[in-house]
Amino acid sequence: MTFPMTPTITAFERSPDRGKGLARDMRVRWALEEAGQAYEVRLVSFSAMKEPAHRALHPFGQIPTYEEGDLVLFESGAIVFHVAQRHAGLLPGDANARARAITWMFAALNTVEPPILELQNARLLESDKPWSEQRLPLVEGRVRVRLGELSARLGRADWLDGGFSAGDLMMVAVLLRLKPSGMLDDYPNLFAYVARGEARPAYQRAFDAQRAVFTGKPPTGR
Amino acid sequence: MTFPMTPTITAFERSPDRGKGLARDMRVRWALEEAGQAYEVRLVSFSAMKEPAHRALHPFGQIPTYEEGDLVLFESGAIVFHVAQRHAGLLPGDANARARAITWMFAALNTVEPPILELQNARLLESDKPWSEQRLPLVEGRVRVRLGELSARLGRADWLDGGFSAGDLMMVAVLLRLKPSGMLDDYPNLFAYVARGEARPAYQRAFDAQRAVFTGKPPTGR
Repeated sequence: MTFPMTPTITAFERSPDRGKGLARDMRVRWALEEAGQAYEVRLVSFSAMKEPAHRALHPFGQIPTYEEGDLVLFESGAIVFHVAQRHAGLLPGDANARARAITWMFAALNTVEPPILELQNARLLESDKPWSEQRLPLVEGRVRVRLGELSARLGRADWLDGGFSAGDLMMVAVLLRLKPSGMLDDYPNLFAYVARGEARPAYQRAFDAQRAVFTGKPPTGR
Repeated sequence: MTFPMTPTITAFERSPDRGKGLARDMRVRWALEEAGQAYEVRLVSFSAMKEPAHRALHPFGQIPTYEEGDLVLFESGAIVFHVAQRHAGLLPGDANARARAITWMFAALNTVEPPILELQNARLLESDKPWSEQRLPLVEGRVRVRLGELSARLGRADWLDGGFSAGDLMMVAVLLRLKPSGMLDDYPNLFAYVARGEARPAYQRAFDAQRAVFTGKPPTGR
């Protein structure tokens, strides 16, 4: 099933990572590609993101947003869930398996991502502070606790619970934020898990589409 | 509709807040009470939470968990969603309104809670560090940005999008973590919003049930 109206998402006009795929529109693009759903992209500048017109769509002045007819959504988790719920391939049909896949979405966003965001704040926003060097190992330690637990649970499996799901999509997207730090190298099964996500054709299409914003090719997914 | 089997959740044997209702089992209890769903509670000690038996239920060694027949869930967001999906009163019937309510659940957990968790880490885990006093205003500032934006969106409305939903339940539960800090006092509409949540009979029943763990009354919700 495809949506009756082609949805439009928003993305950074100039992503802080210059097309490395770490901005949150990537999660939504990836889900839409997995679902085979065409979409349009509207690019937003940093200043426009904080203006009333964009805040009407996204109260926190961020990207991505999602517009589909009368429906306006924000929060990458909510948008991925909305897409996953209405297309095959991202959530299992069995009710219990589906509830577990949704659990992994929430675990990615509310248990694994918060310490990663804290680390990112420490690195990007507090690098010039007098405490920066001394404090960093403490924050990294909080991330490592979560990585160790996730690594133990994943074990030798390909995905977190049976086949690939929106839970894996979200977890891989969150873990990707650590790639520049090299921290994933210490957890070979998580490293391979992330690589497995990145190797998916839908991921590749989404990655190319967001990267095209920087190379001048059209920013739509297909 | 009630579940064929009474679900069992886990909660702290000794909550760090001594029954103030800030632990994450409170969110689940509240949702179950809103849904009119009876539940059992199993109390878990801090040491037992990190043992393999509990980690089999919750890979990150935390509470709450949720067991219902063969189904095992963790993550308060996922459990609240599971409950909300299967009972009236927590998610609107209209598909678009429902997607928006779910958006607020994710916004509470992935946009509003992370800076609050960072503040909590700064206060509880780094209070003895040499940078503590100097750094705290910076972290509080990050929380204030989100509170300001949320306050602007809520405006004079009672709830975030139409009637009370699981999105409000989660947002109120997240904001409650700030109550001891007094920071909510600067945002009168958010303060009133949180008070409106706390005044709900279901919240009160859930609060009394978690508090009963400390006063010796039986820990089940009803």
